Amino acid sequence: MKLATIKNDTRDGQLVVVNRDLTKAIRVSEVSKTLQEAIDNWDTIAPKLEKIYQQLQNGTASNTFDFDPTQAMAAIPRAYHWADGSAYVTHVELVRKARNAELPETFWTDPLIYMGASDAFIGANDDIKIENEDWGIDFESEVAVITDDVPAGVSVKNAQKHIKLIAIINDVSLRNLIPNELSKQFGFYQSKPWTSFAPVVVTPDELGNSWSDTKVHLPLISTLNSKIIGSPNAGIDMTFNFAQLIAHAAKTRSLMAGSIIGSGTVANQGSPNGSSCLAEVRCLEIIKNGKASTPFMSFGDRIEIEMKNETGNSIFGKIDQTVKSYKPMS
Amino acid sequence: MKLATIKNDTRDGQLVVVNRDLTKAIRVSEVSKTLQEAIDNWDTIAPKLEKIYQQLQNGTASNTFDFDPTQAMAAIPRAYHWADGSAYVTHVELVRKARNAELPETFWTDPLIYMGASDAFIGANDDIKIENEDWGIDFESEVAVITDDVPAGVSVKNAQKHIKLIAIINDVSLRNLIPNELSKQFGFYQSKPWTSFAPVVVTPDELGNSWSDTKVHLPLISTLNSKIIGSPNAGIDMTFNFAQLIAHAAKTRSLMAGSIIGSGTVANQGSPNGSSCLAEVRCLEIIKNGKASTPFMSFGDRIEIEMKNETGNSIFGKIDQTVKSYKPMS
Repeated sequence: MKLATIKNDTRDGQLVVVNRDLTKAIRVSEVSKTLQEAIDNWDTIAPKLEKIYQQLQNGTASNTFDFDPTQAMAAIPRAYHWADGSAYVTHVELVRKARNAELPETFWTDPLIYMGASDAFIGANDDIKIENEDWGIDFESEVAVITDDVPAGVSVKNAQKHIKLIAIINDVSLRNLIPNELSKQFGFYQSKPWTSFAPVVVTPDELGNSWSDTKVHLPLISTLNSKIIGSPNAGIDMTFNFAQLIAHAAKTRSLMAGSIIGSGTVANQGSPNGSSCLAEVRCLEIIKNGKASTPFMSFGDRIEIEMKNETGNSIFGKIDQTVKSYKPMS
Repeated sequence: MKLATIKNDTRDGQLVVVNRDLTKAIRVSEVSKTLQEAIDNWDTIAPKLEKIYQQLQNGTASNTFDFDPTQAMAAIPRAYHWADGSAYVTHVELVRKARNAELPETFWTDPLIYMGASDAFIGANDDIKIENEDWGIDFESEVAVITDDVPAGVSVKNAQKHIKLIAIINDVSLRNLIPNELSKQFGFYQSKPWTSFAPVVVTPDELGNSWSDTKVHLPLISTLNSKIIGSPNAGIDMTFNFAQLIAHAAKTRSLMAGSIIGSGTVANQGSPNGSSCLAEVRCLEIIKNGKASTPFMSFGDRIEIEMKNETGNSIFGKIDQTVKSYKPMS
């Protein structure tokens, strides 16, 4: 099934079930007001939502309305846990190569994960508001999963059972703030401001055979100002699958229901189908030409991120955002 | 006023108002079910809670009950944002000195903050469950503040207005997992499992003159197995006050109401009154004797953390936790 959270003037929005074509939706307040409430009680609530989804699909549902993706908030507009991996190690290797740094051998066996800002999630069509263009504004196209409660010390085998929903996201990065933050060794903070979600999240069964080994085996298409920057396949070169990322995240403590685990920038070795962020484009230019020629994003730039199934239909709807200048109050 | 969240078999617990002596409490569901709900609407809800607090203080409140700190959950049992500073730079300097590393000069002007696990908060008397003693279990005694909504780009001057509540916390660290995580440059993750809160949080006015310049000018007392490890004054050597930490955290994006900002391990230069974590004790031993003789915590160890006002009364109640062995399910 497909689910979305739509704006209703509350911080948490309203949960709706959306049909497969992303054209019709139905409010489900009587089953669950929010996606967080649903994931808190997934075993009892998911079957009820599935039933509504089937009615929506076969045309027997009443009180449906036209689904408007511009009204979508992030799937969980404020969440309790957002951990983003860097599971496509080929991307990390490329970034290191561009600055003549070695990739530690352990990066191929020990997942990289950083803790992100789970209170800074925005909707698929919300503006990316940034104060300063000089901060090096970049998009990062990723796949993410949403879990139910994960016990501490979960095995990789058992971790996969806790994947309840799949999302695609734009993890906005401020590239020029990253070197200083990384040098302090405390991880990303100011350099990771906003993360946006595509209009809907889906249960794994919606992906059919494209969901296997807890990876999504489909291209993720990133388009900047109407030009495709990349469409790497998210199922190729994912060194750590989602089950492995979850087991890593839960090594020393449990994860709360509604935890969101990201894949990191999707990338394929050699980047034959382009890239999922401008940083990678620039690294390829540096390796080839000695310097980067593609700039980071500017105010007014439009980024679209989408994933289509094998018959060409949009699975999650489209992230479609514009970078806007933000002026803090004095 | 003083507020606590008590266990009621829900994930978010129940908000109660507690009297100054921490002996009596009153349920306030009709005003606000949870502390998160209160902080979401602080301007309208805080005055109502204050009124109940006054009734509790002057003995005119009905339906009071004996406050039992063992029933306390974390103030916000699952929160949307937990950012922990390292504001006592003298502590960072000491840790670096013990490993013969230089402290970058910028550490005195550019705050260190890491993103913590806001879905892994536990109560004042909850066990610290850890799978492996060899991970180097340590406590870290800290002060923290809870904010309402903070706009992006807030100035230091305006940031202080967003401090609504003050807490003391135990930010449990797994010291032997830290070097590998820091070398990966993505910040702490597995090395920061659980964070516990003292039984109550308080509004700044409860601290009287001890709250000034957005610092708490009182000793924070840490006791391990009935032996005082340290009682450094939290108002001394705090290089960055809470307003500065909040402004740093909100530089590139807004912070959601209920954001929790920590001070990092409280420390005074030269550690004349001891330390707020075992790592500092061990660093002092290394500098003095060439090696550390104090071990990290073992299963069965008891850690108590408390802060008393100028007349010797406990402000927040006591963090009183035991380290317990945890066995993951197979």
